[in-house]
Amino acid sequence: MTTHKFQPTTYFHTIGTHEPVMEISDGDTVITETLDAHGFDKALKLCGSDTNPMTGPFLVRGAEPGDVMAVKIARIGMNRATGWTRAGLAHSVIEPSRIAHMPDRNKVLWNIGNGQTSLQNPPATLADWAIDVIPMIGCFGVAPAFDEAISTVTSGRHGGNMDYRLFGEGCEAQFPVSVPGALFFLGDVHACQGDGEIAGTGVETSAEVEFTVRLIKQKHIGWPRGETADCIFTIGNVRPLEQALQHATSDMLDWLQSDYGLDLTGASHFMGQAVRYDIANVFNPAYSVACRIEKSWLANIDRG
Amino acid sequence: MTTHKFQPTTYFHTIGTHEPVMEISDGDTVITETLDAHGFDKALKLCGSDTNPMTGPFLVRGAEPGDVMAVKIARIGMNRATGWTRAGLAHSVIEPSRIAHMPDRNKVLWNIGNGQTSLQNPPATLADWAIDVIPMIGCFGVAPAFDEAISTVTSGRHGGNMDYRLFGEGCEAQFPVSVPGALFFLGDVHACQGDGEIAGTGVETSAEVEFTVRLIKQKHIGWPRGETADCIFTIGNVRPLEQALQHATSDMLDWLQSDYGLDLTGASHFMGQAVRYDIANVFNPAYSVACRIEKSWLANIDRG
Amino acid sequence: MTTHKFQPTTYFHTIGTHEPVMEISDGDTVITETLDAHGFDKALKLCGSDTNPMTGPFLVRGAEPGDVMAVKIARIGMNRATGWTRAGLAHSVIEPSRIAHMPDRNKVLWNIGNGQTSLQNPPATLADWAIDVIPMIGCFGVAPAFDEAISTVTSGRHGGNMDYRLFGEGCEAQFPVSVPGALFFLGDVHACQGDGEIAGTGVETSAEVEFTVRLIKQKHIGWPRGETADCIFTIGNVRPLEQALQHATSDMLDWLQSDYGLDLTGASHFMGQAVRYDIANVFNPAYSVACRIEKSWLANIDRG
Amino acid sequence: MTTHKFQPTTYFHTIGTHEPVMEISDGDTVITETLDAHGFDKALKLCGSDTNPMTGPFLVRGAEPGDVMAVKIARIGMNRATGWTRAGLAHSVIEPSRIAHMPDRNKVLWNIGNGQTSLQNPPATLADWAIDVIPMIGCFGVAPAFDEAISTVTSGRHGGNMDYRLFGEGCEAQFPVSVPGALFFLGDVHACQGDGEIAGTGVETSAEVEFTVRLIKQKHIGWPRGETADCIFTIGNVRPLEQALQHATSDMLDWLQSDYGLDLTGASHFMGQAVRYDIANVFNPAYSVACRIEKSWLANIDRG
Repeated sequence: MTTHKFQPTTYFHTIGTHEPVMEISDGDTVITETLDAHGFDKALKLCGSDTNPMTGPFLVRGAEPGDVMAVKIARIGMNRATGWTRAGLAHSVIEPSRIAHMPDRNKVLWNIGNGQTSLQNPPATLADWAIDVIPMIGCFGVAPAFDEAISTVTSGRHGGNMDYRLFGEGCEAQFPVSVPGALFFLGDVHACQGDGEIAGTGVETSAEVEFTVRLIKQKHIGWPRGETADCIFTIGNVRPLEQALQHATSDMLDWLQSDYGLDLTGASHFMGQAVRYDIANVFNPAYSVACRIEKSWLANIDRG
Repeated sequence: MTTHKFQPTTYFHTIGTHEPVMEISDGDTVITETLDAHGFDKALKLCGSDTNPMTGPFLVRGAEPGDVMAVKIARIGMNRATGWTRAGLAHSVIEPSRIAHMPDRNKVLWNIGNGQTSLQNPPATLADWAIDVIPMIGCFGVAPAFDEAISTVTSGRHGGNMDYRLFGEGCEAQFPVSVPGALFFLGDVHACQGDGEIAGTGVETSAEVEFTVRLIKQKHIGWPRGETADCIFTIGNVRPLEQALQHATSDMLDWLQSDYGLDLTGASHFMGQAVRYDIANVFNPAYSVACRIEKSWLANIDRG
Repeated sequence: MTTHKFQPTTYFHTIGTHEPVMEISDGDTVITETLDAHGFDKALKLCGSDTNPMTGPFLVRGAEPGDVMAVKIARIGMNRATGWTRAGLAHSVIEPSRIAHMPDRNKVLWNIGNGQTSLQNPPATLADWAIDVIPMIGCFGVAPAFDEAISTVTSGRHGGNMDYRLFGEGCEAQFPVSVPGALFFLGDVHACQGDGEIAGTGVETSAEVEFTVRLIKQKHIGWPRGETADCIFTIGNVRPLEQALQHATSDMLDWLQSDYGLDLTGASHFMGQAVRYDIANVFNPAYSVACRIEKSWLANIDRG
Repeated sequence: MTTHKFQPTTYFHTIGTHEPVMEISDGDTVITETLDAHGFDKALKLCGSDTNPMTGPFLVRGAEPGDVMAVKIARIGMNRATGWTRAGLAHSVIEPSRIAHMPDRNKVLWNIGNGQTSLQNPPATLADWAIDVIPMIGCFGVAPAFDEAISTVTSGRHGGNMDYRLFGEGCEAQFPVSVPGALFFLGDVHACQGDGEIAGTGVETSAEVEFTVRLIKQKHIGWPRGETADCIFTIGNVRPLEQALQHATSDMLDWLQSDYGLDLTGASHFMGQAVRYDIANVFNPAYSVACRIEKSWLANIDRG
């Protein structure tokens, strides 16, 4: 149960079987730093290359294909006073006939401080508009199967650029392990973000992140999962949204059966009334849909 | 501001320019009854034909194409002791490779009473499982444009079978008027329902519904909208989900500009961080996606 | 086997259970005229309303729900010297980032004559460019099920605005009958058209059309079908393209079993190597995909 | 203009920046062998790992990012007497309600010889059914950008598993070069295949392939392209089909402008009437749509 401090000096823009920067053990905690999506660090120095340069990989001793690597996000600390977004909404989220009339997609600066973030040069109606910093990790995951090295602009079964706002402080994410040591990468922190990442960004910034790993031996999960104080969720990463939803729903059916004592019919009844979906991301090459169950609903089940 | 009681005797399974059953005025309230999705009334008598037979249409005096007809759902009263769902999840929401292994889609009965609903013959793990009745209107809307008569299994700009759980008590829905008198239809009440209507049903039942109409003259809205105590939302009804999301997002951009003082750039900044999406329905011929903004976020805007 | 001449005076912009303009019998031939998509006739007189005003409906005596109504398109005669298209490609067929840079979608005039058609005001590189008139019917079909009246801008199981270039002279189209008398409508002739109707139009024009009806009693078909001298095809009409393809493929599996002696496994083997798909239309509210089998392949089957 | 003979001993199941097996020059020809999709060679010996193990990579001297590498497929020689398919159609191509009733997806053996291929154990109706061998390369391409290593089950801008039947003998394929030396891989030959690869396979087999490379310096192409004796085509590789079609159409607009003298308006007019689409693949993780123009249409253009 060691706590490691790790100051990165190299970064990857693919998630793959790269040389680990550190070996850690089940239960260990790491405190490290991440660059923003364009590679700038806490001092606004360019240290990594587009897009979403990753800190890591961290090798988890004993992790084997067929295991699950869980990562508790203990803290996401803001370590600089600025972030950025883009001015216009992404083409993928508005009617095609409106695209020619939208604001351009220039970079827009935000101030970050005292737990809030606000536009540096707001239009008049947003002059007094400051919003809470609710930080999240945009891109993280483990080395994928089949020897792939997958760009950090996209996502898949291994995780990657899912941009889901519930991957925030207190969440424990789970990833299916595909290579010995799992090889965990992280980066692309957002100070906050709405559903869908419809501006193509959250408030993009660098951060100090503290996380703790937990190894679950010999457990099959189809896709990344998460658990917060309030809910459990599965996430599917693929185009189109319908298919992402199918993966997330199917994986939740599995979870309710393996861990909550429901059979397939019971899980179907339960999900039909209890399920919530979040459109995590509808901008990246793979879209992300989360299938979420509030724990208050789960309390209602008799696990015998 | 009259309150009308209306006991229906005929029902429509299309939404179109049908003979009105009653004329009402701006501000009037109607108390009426709806059949369940298969046409059964509060006495379990078959009165209407599949699917989602509608009560109405109600002609609103003075409504003209180009207006908006708002409908405040004052009350959705349960008027019988049973509802029904289907056993297996819909094909559209699970991985295709799992379809052959799912429970069949037989009709399953639920009890309704004391503000709760529960399975009549639950599997053991759901033996103690009862959930709150949070009723909603599955299918409602106004006569569509272009002289169409559209089946109540589907939805569109006119409303229809959107199956969105926030169309519940206290919600004021808005529809774009396409024909003189608007011609409002309603039916298909659910005692409760999860996101996406992934069992292909909510807990389907008959109901007594009380609603109040409000006419907004000469206002363009592209798609149905709603307002609750906590939020405003727009809804797009079409396949695939991406396009439904595009319509809902575009209509919310319009709403924030017309009623909340934001310009297009400001609305883009605002929505990028504040937006929530609900997958209302991913079962019907047209899918429904709601774009939702919490009023707590809107309080933050300086409307000058 | 009567031949009727019918000069229309009224037109419908929905396909539904409208009052028939003529009753005909199995085997009869009709010679009639159609307006262009905007309602202009052979004399460029505006006679019908947007979009795709229909000639008909023709009631076919003896047609009942559960039958198939086949329509042999004997001739599509050009009856005026002009047609029109639009300048820019449709938004649905190009990358969203290019939409703002495309030519506007203004109406563009074409000359029609001597079996060819050419732009009235061509850019220099197309100065000598004339193409063969290969006429087709853009929109035709029979009254749909469930009492719907469906706009002629879209399509479905009943046919409608499929805009498939193989619905030309010599093709026999088949439609599933949903109402007594079938009620056949037609219009929206194109002098020619590429795949997908990617300009949002073919060369739109009025025409004289001669067709012969044939009633097939008690045969189930899921979607419209066609047969030409060279091929048979099924067509699915819905968004997205994947689903349209699924319907067309499934209906072809049925056809190969019911009429060509293959079992399901044999039909799967056969289609895996022999199938061709045409993207008929990727512009209308419902997209259309045709699943086509060349008759030269069918000759190879031993029907026992 | 050397001709190289290359006997592979190692194979890759990703396309990435792997160590080249041979260096060749612009204009050189290579004669080599490919394994079938499951890794079996001409002697039915297992030599490579699932799926679609690649021969190569071949480094082309002088190729730089921003160039195009063209590959003329001179010959695809059958080098064993058997191939295989799967019994049932893929889940992605049939209505979901039919999936449970389809034949399983077992491996099915075919004989190959004398220019024809036929089922080893045909159902009765296909007893006399033999079809022409029209061989094609299922999976080929160059190392992708951004240091990715992409599985050979899928495809992208770099090529990959496109499974398009026009990538046959006599076709010259073009790929955008992303790394120095291009790094060309090939494999996964099919003795024949229908559109869409709807059985999830063509007739999968090993082969001897002869190809000639041609370097086009400093030319931008967005996606793979091809040219046969009869046509030119572009291909988009992504889900959903709509987006694949958008990429292919956009790249064809570029090609008509850069090489055929049309401006954007002229290219739009031309494509609106002349375009053909082929659904190359609707089974792989990325779907493939080809946008095709017959050369007979191009002869009609005045290039000035």
